[in-house]
Amino acid sequence: QRLGFDEVIYGESKSINLLLGLLAEYVNRNQNVLITRVQHKKGKALLKKHHSAFFDKESGIFMLKPLEGNDEVKRVGIISAGSSDIGVANEAYYTLTYMGIGAEIIQDVGVAGLHRLLDRIEDLRTYDILIVVAGFEGALPTVVGGLLPQPIIAVPTSVGYGTAKNGKTALHAMLTSCSNGITVVNIDNGYGAAMSAFRMLNLKK
Amino acid sequence: QRLGFDEVIYGESKSINLLLGLLAEYVNRNQNVLITRVQHKKGKALLKKHHSAFFDKESGIFMLKPLEGNDEVKRVGIISAGSSDIGVANEAYYTLTYMGIGAEIIQDVGVAGLHRLLDRIEDLRTYDILIVVAGFEGALPTVVGGLLPQPIIAVPTSVGYGTAKNGKTALHAMLTSCSNGITVVNIDNGYGAAMSAFRMLNLKK
Amino acid sequence: QRLGFDEVIYGESKSINLLLGLLAEYVNRNQNVLITRVQHKKGKALLKKHHSAFFDKESGIFMLKPLEGNDEVKRVGIISAGSSDIGVANEAYYTLTYMGIGAEIIQDVGVAGLHRLLDRIEDLRTYDILIVVAGFEGALPTVVGGLLPQPIIAVPTSVGYGTAKNGKTALHAMLTSCSNGITVVNIDNGYGAAMSAFRMLNLKK
Amino acid sequence: QRLGFDEVIYGESKSINLLLGLLAEYVNRNQNVLITRVQHKKGKALLKKHHSAFFDKESGIFMLKPLEGNDEVKRVGIISAGSSDIGVANEAYYTLTYMGIGAEIIQDVGVAGLHRLLDRIEDLRTYDILIVVAGFEGALPTVVGGLLPQPIIAVPTSVGYGTAKNGKTALHAMLTSCSNGITVVNIDNGYGAAMSAFRMLNLKK
Amino acid sequence: QRLGFDEVIYGESKSINLLLGLLAEYVNRNQNVLITRVQHKKGKALLKKHHSAFFDKESGIFMLKPLEGNDEVKRVGIISAGSSDIGVANEAYYTLTYMGIGAEIIQDVGVAGLHRLLDRIEDLRTYDILIVVAGFEGALPTVVGGLLPQPIIAVPTSVGYGTAKNGKTALHAMLTSCSNGITVVNIDNGYGAAMSAFRMLNLKK
Amino acid sequence: QRLGFDEVIYGESKSINLLLGLLAEYVNRNQNVLITRVQHKKGKALLKKHHSAFFDKESGIFMLKPLEGNDEVKRVGIISAGSSDIGVANEAYYTLTYMGIGAEIIQDVGVAGLHRLLDRIEDLRTYDILIVVAGFEGALPTVVGGLLPQPIIAVPTSVGYGTAKNGKTALHAMLTSCSNGITVVNIDNGYGAAMSAFRMLNLKK
Amino acid sequence: QRLGFDEVIYGESKSINLLLGLLAEYVNRNQNVLITRVQHKKGKALLKKHHSAFFDKESGIFMLKPLEGNDEVKRVGIISAGSSDIGVANEAYYTLTYMGIGAEIIQDVGVAGLHRLLDRIEDLRTYDILIVVAGFEGALPTVVGGLLPQPIIAVPTSVGYGTAKNGKTALHAMLTSCSNGITVVNIDNGYGAAMSAFRMLNLKK
Amino acid sequence: QRLGFDEVIYGESKSINLLLGLLAEYVNRNQNVLITRVQHKKGKALLKKHHSAFFDKESGIFMLKPLEGNDEVKRVGIISAGSSDIGVANEAYYTLTYMGIGAEIIQDVGVAGLHRLLDRIEDLRTYDILIVVAGFEGALPTVVGGLLPQPIIAVPTSVGYGTAKNGKTALHAMLTSCSNGITVVNIDNGYGAAMSAFRMLNLKK
Ligand SMILES: Nc1ncnc2c1ncn2[C@@H]1O[C@H](COP(=O)(O)O)[C@@H](O)[C@H]1O
Ligand SMILES: Nc1ncnc2c1ncn2[C@@H]1O[C@H](COP(=O)(O)O)[C@@H](O)[C@H]1O
Ligand SMILES: Nc1ncnc2c1ncn2[C@@H]1O[C@H](COP(=O)(O)O)[C@@H](O)[C@H]1O
Ligand SMILES: Nc1ncnc2c1ncn2[C@@H]1O[C@H](COP(=O)(O)O)[C@@H](O)[C@H]1O
Ligand SMILES: [Mg+2]
Ligand SMILES: [Mg+2]
Ligand SMILES: [Mg+2]
Ligand SMILES: [Mg+2]
Ligand SMILES: [Mg+2]
Ligand SMILES: [Mg+2]
Ligand SMILES: [Mg+2]
Ligand SMILES: [Mg+2]
Repeated sequence: QRLGFDEVIYGESKSINLLLGLLAEYVNRNQNVLITRVQHKKGKALLKKHHSAFFDKESGIFMLKPLEGNDEVKRVGIISAGSSDIGVANEAYYTLTYMGIGAEIIQDVGVAGLHRLLDRIEDLRTYDILIVVAGFEGALPTVVGGLLPQPIIAVPTSVGYGTAKNGKTALHAMLTSCSNGITVVNIDNGYGAAMSAFRMLNLKK
Repeated sequence: QRLGFDEVIYGESKSINLLLGLLAEYVNRNQNVLITRVQHKKGKALLKKHHSAFFDKESGIFMLKPLEGNDEVKRVGIISAGSSDIGVANEAYYTLTYMGIGAEIIQDVGVAGLHRLLDRIEDLRTYDILIVVAGFEGALPTVVGGLLPQPIIAVPTSVGYGTAKNGKTALHAMLTSCSNGITVVNIDNGYGAAMSAFRMLNLKK
Repeated sequence: QRLGFDEVIYGESKSINLLLGLLAEYVNRNQNVLITRVQHKKGKALLKKHHSAFFDKESGIFMLKPLEGNDEVKRVGIISAGSSDIGVANEAYYTLTYMGIGAEIIQDVGVAGLHRLLDRIEDLRTYDILIVVAGFEGALPTVVGGLLPQPIIAVPTSVGYGTAKNGKTALHAMLTSCSNGITVVNIDNGYGAAMSAFRMLNLKK
Repeated sequence: QRLGFDEVIYGESKSINLLLGLLAEYVNRNQNVLITRVQHKKGKALLKKHHSAFFDKESGIFMLKPLEGNDEVKRVGIISAGSSDIGVANEAYYTLTYMGIGAEIIQDVGVAGLHRLLDRIEDLRTYDILIVVAGFEGALPTVVGGLLPQPIIAVPTSVGYGTAKNGKTALHAMLTSCSNGITVVNIDNGYGAAMSAFRMLNLKK
Repeated sequence: QRLGFDEVIYGESKSINLLLGLLAEYVNRNQNVLITRVQHKKGKALLKKHHSAFFDKESGIFMLKPLEGNDEVKRVGIISAGSSDIGVANEAYYTLTYMGIGAEIIQDVGVAGLHRLLDRIEDLRTYDILIVVAGFEGALPTVVGGLLPQPIIAVPTSVGYGTAKNGKTALHAMLTSCSNGITVVNIDNGYGAAMSAFRMLNLKK
Repeated sequence: QRLGFDEVIYGESKSINLLLGLLAEYVNRNQNVLITRVQHKKGKALLKKHHSAFFDKESGIFMLKPLEGNDEVKRVGIISAGSSDIGVANEAYYTLTYMGIGAEIIQDVGVAGLHRLLDRIEDLRTYDILIVVAGFEGALPTVVGGLLPQPIIAVPTSVGYGTAKNGKTALHAMLTSCSNGITVVNIDNGYGAAMSAFRMLNLKK
Repeated sequence: QRLGFDEVIYGESKSINLLLGLLAEYVNRNQNVLITRVQHKKGKALLKKHHSAFFDKESGIFMLKPLEGNDEVKRVGIISAGSSDIGVANEAYYTLTYMGIGAEIIQDVGVAGLHRLLDRIEDLRTYDILIVVAGFEGALPTVVGGLLPQPIIAVPTSVGYGTAKNGKTALHAMLTSCSNGITVVNIDNGYGAAMSAFRMLNLKK
Repeated sequence: QRLGFDEVIYGESKSINLLLGLLAEYVNRNQNVLITRVQHKKGKALLKKHHSAFFDKESGIFMLKPLEGNDEVKRVGIISAGSSDIGVANEAYYTLTYMGIGAEIIQDVGVAGLHRLLDRIEDLRTYDILIVVAGFEGALPTVVGGLLPQPIIAVPTSVGYGTAKNGKTALHAMLTSCSNGITVVNIDNGYGAAMSAFRMLNLKK
């Protein structure tokens, strides 16, 4: 709480039993909690015990209480090239929702079809922060960063094959981007992108 | 200018003649300009023609007009563990100065001597943004990020040997930090850290 | 035996039949034996024939005879940040137990929540040796090594994703730590950490 | 000659004496010859003996006879983002000239200033083939490939630092580009790009 | 369509439902469409709804309408060493067919049995373009490029083990080939090879 | 001092002036100090001002006061295969001397001439701790660890070429050694080996 | 046959149907044939049709006719440290048998228990050629090469975890061995080791 | 001498003084000695003291006594593509000469000009052993191994740029060659190739 938010649980390497134990404590304290990287099978098991909980199977996000509509202003735009990156975009989206921050996902504005992106530029200018998600060669944040002045949080994804190297090429391309002032988070780390947007939005207060 | 700032020149692979030609144009237009990564010998050659220009040999930053004292509020804290990372810290500092943003360098608060860092926590809380510079294992942003709530821009440096792998270990460690919401820029990229701080500070306006 | 201990069997690439054959020999000689990296399914098959044997499914440690309580002094502290690294911590713990050395696991003292670690410092000072287990960016041994004077055996784990690179980032970070005199073993090698602690404790004799 | 062109000499690891010996043979046979990767000092030594020869110090290209103006149609456009990649662009340009193919270099149309590129699209459409040279994150061929239908030969360069990894990031990004039908040559290989353009232009005959 | 061809769908990370939705749109518009990298199970599910569609399980290529015999001239030769690379060769073949380009696969002309290749040289000379597919050490494009003058598109495959490194060794070998003017696409990227052949064949028009 | 020793200065990236400034402070306080990784030229410059100081050009170790003969018992044996690794062996040796610990270097007991090593086994058994330094394939600690029961601190060196990969192969070989309980420090890190020996020798007190 | 042996089939990426087709041809011609890397399930399917064929499930070696006892002199010794490397040792052994060369496997002479190896030295001296198989740190060929004068073919295996890097560490260690004149084959390549032994034994004729 | 040859000195990291000391001992004992990897400057210094010694500046080979013409039969053929690899070819050649083995260098038979190689096949068949030296993509041993039955020792060299990766690509390509029974030594290791040829030639005795 020292940092303005509660600890979030990393679900990937925890057993169903362990997670159920942790959830029981939060229910007792009547608190909400966020768990990331909950695999499909484990998510379904948690839902069986916690019927009103929320689980998104694309991203593996689990929350005891879904938080909808609590921020009408859409502060963060989450941009991605297509439906392949939806899991990562959702991880960012639901984490922001959990933190009480309005967000919106804008799909299908990739580099291969540049005109679709150029047509949306004025829309994109309205967000405080842009989270730009991209796999393959990861060129999208570079292009967006050359066109728009907001803080840009680039998220490389592991989509692609061969020299995509499970996201390492996109990651390194984003870090060495010739656009100015882009910051980067770990491969597939939609959660981290959301948390850094949260830190930045403190500046508005 | 579309992005609120002028283009900056990457000096590393440009010859003295080419740089002098470019500088002449800026002098004619009576504009200031920032050149990064100017090697020592080249910087001295530029200074010979432009006596009132500014050159920092630690970082290779060159500006036609030094901009001092134009922002009394120190908005950005640049933290590093010691004097080995001074070049990168200075690159961030002078870029911020050029952009008209007040900044301060805080040295000698490394992870090996944790108590010196803990003693400074309340001071560090006063900056809007923290740029955290670290080589070797790059643990400093993780520790700072666990203690303080501001936006944190982590800059890995190429200081170290062997498994430090010219900054790659610090880079990867920062990206996979278990502290929440840390963003990262390229190895030794003090310039990029400053530019992303500039983007974030727009949120205060 | 030349080294003061019996050979330990590496179970990972041995078939159930081969392992049963080896165990039969030890039973005949009425000797205890340690097998490491026994996969869950194989461990259950071995237990069926050897009812009084011990098998820990988190770590894959198998022993013909469980050795409990044979050293009341807790000489080795095994520190980890959370429950994700429990398999590696257990591998160290049960190997030490097998060697007749008292040990204790201290969980939940990670870098992200530094104050929990600082609160335990005096407790941790009482162990002869500290085995520090960490995944993700692997910063924990650096922080512990800056605070405490004992021999520190750092064990990187393969917990994490993306730039965690299956433990390689934690490994390289630990090796290039700016804390003094930390030694390191292979990724996920709780067994090796225990064996090096055993060698070190010979110095007390 | 089997392939429609003479052998070209790789100059990088040959001594001045060895190169002078080879050149003497070509002079005797009254033939032109192309040598690539001739370092500055070696190029000057060769020019001393062969006054009418051609040497470009940016690219290290050496030819016994300069071939100018032998193809008035500009078939190949060589695009790059700026002056840092000039050596590689020149290597492609002079090799094409040597092969009797008209070419043109178009600088300063990088991804960071996308509008300059968009303004030139119709010009670029007039070339038979586009050689696209880029360092740092190497996004330029992806953007060009999404806008124009010609054969695109992408040349990654070693310009950049840190995660640019001496051109490996740009190379891998170009290979995994989400634009369709881009082909790639080795890092800094302007020569290879020109030779593959030569092979492709045979299709016009 | 800006580029003379319709968008192609990357099937690997799309669910059956999503793909069925997309296909329904194409059926409505009475258009053909190409989907790449459709896994075996997903391909069978799509065929159930679209009985007259085409699916090749070796390559994962799916088309709403099979296009056979629409170009009697065989413009592109697809060479491979053996049956291990058949999936990649087929991906190139069917993509070319979809684009209306005649192609032919020539198997069993590997480097290990050089005489079989030498016996076929005059046949191979008749194609406009050669796509050369090879795994293991990837030497085949080098040998073919030293013997024949056409444009050569080298496709490394992930066939092999150990130092074959899932195709990275073949890729890097092809890029650094001492044969002149070879261009390269991503590992296993038969699709990209076909698309670049398509771009090159525009030169014949 | 919290850890029982003073801070040591990393000299590699500090200028002569900066180092002279630091030394002046220690002279004033009449304290000894250790600086590591002082390059040859810088070491000579420091000696000019501090005539009674100690500088070893093989290892780059600098001390204000040489400490000789302060521990007559030779507790640590530093083993290496030959004279190529002398710089790393000396770094360990002089650091131990500075810490007041008796040490001895044993050269020419490499793996290629195994009998010389076997002949020395009983001698080597007398040390409390063995620091084993090796480049190339780094097999020496594995062999020593299979023969002797003491704590073994393996130090990989960057001696070798090609697949020695500047010490990375030796490092990884030592970490994955099939001898039990070997611990490892960073490449060329004689200093770290000495500091970890210091921590271990506390166990004797 | 040009090389004195028939082509061998690489089974790993061929379907059961394809393999059955190939086998039928060999049966028709009444010829023996060797297939390598046949997975367990596929091997059993082949045996069903070819009852008198030979299949070794450890190595995946399949032969139409088992060839036993055809060379009474044991020319090649295949050394390994333990039962983990049995698959690779068998691949070498059965390939040699197929080629009509007598061979023998000597297990349990690893580096960790050096004395067992030293006890066997005179036995090992009787073979013409030594194939030395080792995983983990791969030190065994270095030790054997320092003790014995025969041709040594080192085979790294993918046994181990973490820094063993699937055999890459053993491979690189063997290549940079400080023992003289060791040659190396690909990771897990027992087949290649046997074939190179075959080439060498031609020298005896 | 246990292995039939004297120890050879690795000169790369030894000072002139140290080498002169070692040479003096050999002169005293009236013995010849081989030193490898002697840098140009150091070689000239040694020659000043030892006028009748032999030094080859291409390879850095130094011998107290040149051994010419001591084996009239040319047993080992050393093949390379061109003059760039001459240093490595010479290292093999002079080492063989020192060991009393007749050898011959055959240059200019690279893969790019395959017909020159095919014209020489019958000549090459006369050697007992072939050492095949190649940089760039390293395809030469694969082609030679598919045509000739002798033992083949492949030596990758560090010649090339970009994806040649200082010889790593050639190394990995040779190890994963689809030609049968090729063995490989370290990058640029002409010395090791010669020593393994020496071991193999023992089989002829
Ligand atoms: N998806 C994620 N990626 C990175 N870090 C995470 C993720 N989810 C949770 N965390 C962090 O991991 C830590 C929790 O780990 P644990 O105690 O093992 O649940 C907290 O510091 C979280 O902020
Ligand atoms: N988990 C482990 N990690 C590393 N080495 C091990 C492990 N378990 C056993 N060993 C070592 O591996 C060797 C036994 O291998 P094996 O003969 O194949 O059972 C012995 O030297 C053991 O000390
Ligand atoms: N096998 C493939 N390899 C590389 N790119 C592909 C492949 N198949 C389709 N694409 C490209 O990927 C993009 C489609 O991605 P999506 O919108 O996710 O279906 C288009 O630009 C296609 O041209
Ligand atoms: N296990 C193996 N490792 C490496 N090469 C092999 C192996 N088995 C067969 N080969 C070689 O691979 C080629 C056969 O490939 P294929 O035509 O796909 O069956 C021949 O040149 C064989 O000598
Ligand atoms: Mg897309
Ligand atoms: Mg410091
Ligand atoms: Mg945790
Ligand atoms: Mg530019
Ligand atoms: Mg084949
Ligand atoms: Mg030595
Ligand atoms: Mg073993
Ligand atoms: Mg050549």
